[in-house]
Amino acid sequence: MRMYDIIEKKRDGLPLKSEEISFFVKNYTEGNIPDYQASALLMAIFFNKLNDEETLHLTKAMVESGDTVDLSYINGIKVDKHSTGGVGDTTTLVLGPMVASCGVPFVKMSGRGLGHTGGTLDKLESISGFNVNLSKEDFMNNVNDINIAICSQTANITPADKKLYSLRDVTATVDNLSLIASSIMSKKLAIKSDAIVLDVKVGSGAFMKDLSHAKELARLMVNIGNKFGRKTVAIVTNMDEPLGNAIGNALEVKEAIETLQGNGPKDLYELCMTLGTKLLILAERVDNEAEARKLLEESINSKKAYNKLLEMVEEQGGDVKYIQNPNLLPKTKYVMEIKSKTSGFVRSINAEEIGKCVLSLGAGRETIDSVIDLGAGVILNKKVDDEVQIGETLAFIHTEDLDKGKEVENRILDIYKIGEKNIDGKTLIFDEISN
Amino acid sequence: MRMYDIIEKKRDGLPLKSEEISFFVKNYTEGNIPDYQASALLMAIFFNKLNDEETLHLTKAMVESGDTVDLSYINGIKVDKHSTGGVGDTTTLVLGPMVASCGVPFVKMSGRGLGHTGGTLDKLESISGFNVNLSKEDFMNNVNDINIAICSQTANITPADKKLYSLRDVTATVDNLSLIASSIMSKKLAIKSDAIVLDVKVGSGAFMKDLSHAKELARLMVNIGNKFGRKTVAIVTNMDEPLGNAIGNALEVKEAIETLQGNGPKDLYELCMTLGTKLLILAERVDNEAEARKLLEESINSKKAYNKLLEMVEEQGGDVKYIQNPNLLPKTKYVMEIKSKTSGFVRSINAEEIGKCVLSLGAGRETIDSVIDLGAGVILNKKVDDEVQIGETLAFIHTEDLDKGKEVENRILDIYKIGEKNIDGKTLIFDEISN
Repeated sequence: MRMYDIIEKKRDGLPLKSEEISFFVKNYTEGNIPDYQASALLMAIFFNKLNDEETLHLTKAMVESGDTVDLSYINGIKVDKHSTGGVGDTTTLVLGPMVASCGVPFVKMSGRGLGHTGGTLDKLESISGFNVNLSKEDFMNNVNDINIAICSQTANITPADKKLYSLRDVTATVDNLSLIASSIMSKKLAIKSDAIVLDVKVGSGAFMKDLSHAKELARLMVNIGNKFGRKTVAIVTNMDEPLGNAIGNALEVKEAIETLQGNGPKDLYELCMTLGTKLLILAERVDNEAEARKLLEESINSKKAYNKLLEMVEEQGGDVKYIQNPNLLPKTKYVMEIKSKTSGFVRSINAEEIGKCVLSLGAGRETIDSVIDLGAGVILNKKVDDEVQIGETLAFIHTEDLDKGKEVENRILDIYKIGEKNIDGKTLIFDEISN
Repeated sequence: MRMYDIIEKKRDGLPLKSEEISFFVKNYTEGNIPDYQASALLMAIFFNKLNDEETLHLTKAMVESGDTVDLSYINGIKVDKHSTGGVGDTTTLVLGPMVASCGVPFVKMSGRGLGHTGGTLDKLESISGFNVNLSKEDFMNNVNDINIAICSQTANITPADKKLYSLRDVTATVDNLSLIASSIMSKKLAIKSDAIVLDVKVGSGAFMKDLSHAKELARLMVNIGNKFGRKTVAIVTNMDEPLGNAIGNALEVKEAIETLQGNGPKDLYELCMTLGTKLLILAERVDNEAEARKLLEESINSKKAYNKLLEMVEEQGGDVKYIQNPNLLPKTKYVMEIKSKTSGFVRSINAEEIGKCVLSLGAGRETIDSVIDLGAGVILNKKVDDEVQIGETLAFIHTEDLDKGKEVENRILDIYKIGEKNIDGKTLIFDEISN
């Protein structure tokens, strides 16, 4: 088999065989196929696409390129959750404890990446003492004991995806649904939960800007998950404005705690209810949505979910006082208030632009070596469709640097689009795709 | 300027600006842009094409990547000729002396490449003593003295093209008309003749298999040449069966000599007449085709063209006895006769397959280090549309190795397609493109 022939075949619009895809992935990962041939193939894939079967084979080859994590020692139907990424997305810290407190084992191994804020691991590390580096045994024991553990993933998960993603990133071949789907799903499938709920975000703050592409990505990923024998459901959700009010690491932890105490932002709460409902059904904990929703509401109202967070923090070595009193979490020297200069209704808050503001405050990673400022970030006080008067607070900026803060203030004033009329309702959940 | 943005732009179907193309060519040649980004761009070009202007800019950037050869010291309107490559193409050795003997300065600097047989330089080197390594000064002096010189090109002509071609060759991005046209034309334009005739071959033994693509390539190249201020004409010619009867280095030299003596194969003679006509007109030696043809016919009949070959061989240090008595040229130990097993009419002789046979006899280069057997090759005794009887000779195999010869015999028996009826006439010249 020759890589040249594989490139030529895809260039000419023909489907690749399973063996051809594995040959490419295996030999590229091992360094036997040069980058320049891989990038030519990726560009040919960009133009001629992969069909469902090829996408499945690619995912499989990427899973097989590295280690997989067998979680069969964990009792029951283990569930996992993945978001395609947005701005202010604190879902895992709320959803995990909710689901676990309803008796469903919630397993989550995350990686660290670049982004406007840190990821789930960074957020958890704003809790003093919290250990994200669990051994596989401790991870599984924790889940068996208290139904939840969140830790960093082992080093050698899907090395093929890492290498291919780096190449796609510099050759303008990221934007292909099959490549995106196989990249996400290979990482999920390497960690062997029984059921997966995917939160596919769409809008200004998401990778997918367009609903039809987001739905197609969701369909592709669900198909891959199910073909691998995992029960998979995708929810397509709105990421046109940031989710919740907090964007920043410690700020989001605080918001998660508030949400678990029943005082969180409506959209974050509602999204967790929707995702949780799917997880409870996939885990066969309940028979239908009404039952699931009732259990989940109860988990909030009874503080069972909140207590589950405390339990997890304690089990992973964190100081529970940080949860009981979120004022102990990392804070910045300054909190600046942004006041509206006009009256009207908020018509849009571009989530990507807000994300960039938060990144410029130091809350995220621009390069892999960036040091994150865990306290920095933005709290939105007005969201889309809210009425606002001149002089009312639009948002707060948490920063160590007043000059940076001033600059971000001007940007945020610009990002808030305020008009005379309110918008015609906003949608949080666009679609559910289950097969 | 970032290479990423250039790739993305072409990926999205937008035309690249002159500066973007030069940025890419210059930095890729200098090693500042990695192969993997270049191959992604090439594949995007494969799909989204380059328009005429982009093709022109690419050609210009490639010419500027290396040395150019100023030939202004040569008197008169200097003409050059290029063939896109075929099987048994001895044209230069006939056409050059014909044109030069009509008083038109013929300049030809060739490279060495891979192929079924060697190139013009290898063929000339089958003449004992012939020196293809002329200094630029000697080259120009020779042309001023006797109107003709053929030598190898200097090392640093269009390094960008060399590097890009090697990359295209291993990434399935050769087959794009703009890339082909700019590759050929950049090499031609770096050597500054005043007028160029392009022989664009089409058919089984040519790079272009399809007439409409060959015409489009011809149009592109003529446009580039004219935009560069060179008078350029392209002739689209048939390469479905080999040109002439001889395929092999010394065998083709012998055929060229015979053609200059008026005893050559009809198709080779006719092609040289057509190309020569164009050259004489471009060089303003004559006003019209009829005059040109008359002069060229006279150059053969009067032996002026043949004598010009002798003159050139002498001027470049070769032994003219090899021309006067071609039996002195390199020969193989064995000549095998292939006899027809059926009667009928020859309907096709796949030129590419014949080329592969000749290559397997050792007449060409499979890798850049291959040593060429100058004597080896095939002589076709029957060509397309010829009638043939059982037992009549189809072809001769010149070889050092009887086993190889036996194998080639079987292949050639298979390549000759013989049917009951003759074909409905064959066309040598398909089209002429001059603007």
